[in-house]
Amino acid sequence: MSPGDNPTPVAVICGSGRLPVEVVAAARASGRKVVAIAIKGEADPAIAEYDPTYLGWGQIGKLADLLKRESCRDVVMIGGVTRRPEVREIVGDLGTMRRLPRIVAALVGGDDSLLTRIIRLFEDEGFRIIGAHEIAPELLAGEGAIAGPRPSSDAMADLELARRAVIELGRLDIGQGAVAIAGRIVAVEGAEGTDAMLRRCAELRQIGRVKGKGGVLVKCAKPGQDLRIDLPAIGPATVELAGAAGLAGVAVEAGRVLIAERARTLQLAGTSKVFLWGMPTLPPAPKLSPSQPGDT
Amino acid sequence: MSPGDNPTPVAVICGSGRLPVEVVAAARASGRKVVAIAIKGEADPAIAEYDPTYLGWGQIGKLADLLKRESCRDVVMIGGVTRRPEVREIVGDLGTMRRLPRIVAALVGGDDSLLTRIIRLFEDEGFRIIGAHEIAPELLAGEGAIAGPRPSSDAMADLELARRAVIELGRLDIGQGAVAIAGRIVAVEGAEGTDAMLRRCAELRQIGRVKGKGGVLVKCAKPGQDLRIDLPAIGPATVELAGAAGLAGVAVEAGRVLIAERARTLQLAGTSKVFLWGMPTLPPAPKLSPSQPGDT
Repeated sequence: MSPGDNPTPVAVICGSGRLPVEVVAAARASGRKVVAIAIKGEADPAIAEYDPTYLGWGQIGKLADLLKRESCRDVVMIGGVTRRPEVREIVGDLGTMRRLPRIVAALVGGDDSLLTRIIRLFEDEGFRIIGAHEIAPELLAGEGAIAGPRPSSDAMADLELARRAVIELGRLDIGQGAVAIAGRIVAVEGAEGTDAMLRRCAELRQIGRVKGKGGVLVKCAKPGQDLRIDLPAIGPATVELAGAAGLAGVAVEAGRVLIAERARTLQLAGTSKVFLWGMPTLPPAPKLSPSQPGDT
Repeated sequence: MSPGDNPTPVAVICGSGRLPVEVVAAARASGRKVVAIAIKGEADPAIAEYDPTYLGWGQIGKLADLLKRESCRDVVMIGGVTRRPEVREIVGDLGTMRRLPRIVAALVGGDDSLLTRIIRLFEDEGFRIIGAHEIAPELLAGEGAIAGPRPSSDAMADLELARRAVIELGRLDIGQGAVAIAGRIVAVEGAEGTDAMLRRCAELRQIGRVKGKGGVLVKCAKPGQDLRIDLPAIGPATVELAGAAGLAGVAVEAGRVLIAERARTLQLAGTSKVFLWGMPTLPPAPKLSPSQPGDT
């Protein structure tokens, strides 16, 4: 594809981790013009290679001006935010101050999530938030064998059991993952995240609370998950922790889970004998329980 | 009730913790003759008050003789086993040796659980394993307010959400508990147990990963759970850990969850302002997934 095929440039706002750098690289390689914006104190130093504009939390006016000047209608937000900005960092440029009432309103609340409110702020200014996978689809997991050994039939049975748990849980808007070992669901992911759940599995095995060999981590997107801003991802740490927990493999939902640092992740799967497997995309399940307004 | 009302004596095999002592005390108070058997190295010293016979792992022949001599057809097994017996402890009396092939077969496996296999061993000798709640029903949680403050409407919404999660999970034979905070399921109990899940909730709150006030732990028996040998229980530690996690309360399934150290548990609920609530017994849910044979 030549740059002319897709003339609208896309802005990528880069938080922490390697994934934003990979997204920028993949989108550029596809021929699309990418304006990289690095969040100061968060973006990986490797982003420097892609001529980013470094912006702090208080430079929202500057961000808006930049996006308009570069004719970016599409905006991708990717990567983590590892530290909470201090108040003096938020008090910023004129554009920030002008938008401050709305920003504070977004931060303070409402029933929907903070990210949903941030998306609305962007949309109200005429931008469109899109998912990283829309500009770098090759980072998504595909179907079938991805790396590592071939899954045994026991592993496939554990995979199926954990997959059913994740589907059931998705109806309740609970986490994205579950671990089944030897025909039993051993751990379910809540707010602690996948890595913490895998560490727990390793401990349970160590103290003899989990019997049986192998086991499989299943990771999916939740049924109503907004993939534009909250795309599940696995990476080298996932494979390492799965190996440390004695699991036989990791299965992810094809087309809805990113693989970060793909080369290293796949190589680790091979060396640590942890299979990576892409499951067909789950059918959308009707939610049993609408999310309820919190008390804050 | 006078002892004459129920002439068959019951044997209570006591593992670790205060609960076995309470069960023996409650059953005796009801007028039934109780033969207390204390597992050496496990039973709480307070059991001494009830003239127990102390038996080690290798004294299964002596146990069988005792039960027959005392005309105990009904047997209750209650309390934890905190350490794995060593081989030299299992090599025991003549009665143990005679039964050894069957004991080893039970320990080594099959598709059902170890406890199910132990029950079968007893049954084959003509005994009947019954639940602690059958001889001490007053230890079970009742319905409605048990102790602590009155639940707010937010807390009741969290309770309902966590209850639905536990029902869904029960269909997959997953743990017995879940925690909802401010309209969101934050943690689900797997093999780690309730206490570990509550500690996780405290950590998640401390690192700011969980927003919102209050929250409720729901604890139930699993749909197909064998209450004779695996009756869920809460106690002082549950209330303390729930309080440390900032939860507003603990809700248990009435009639299917024991309250250990009731006086202290209820008093702690009051002083730490954590409500205890008994939910109506859950309707039996059809299992989605039959438990699958393990690979061990």
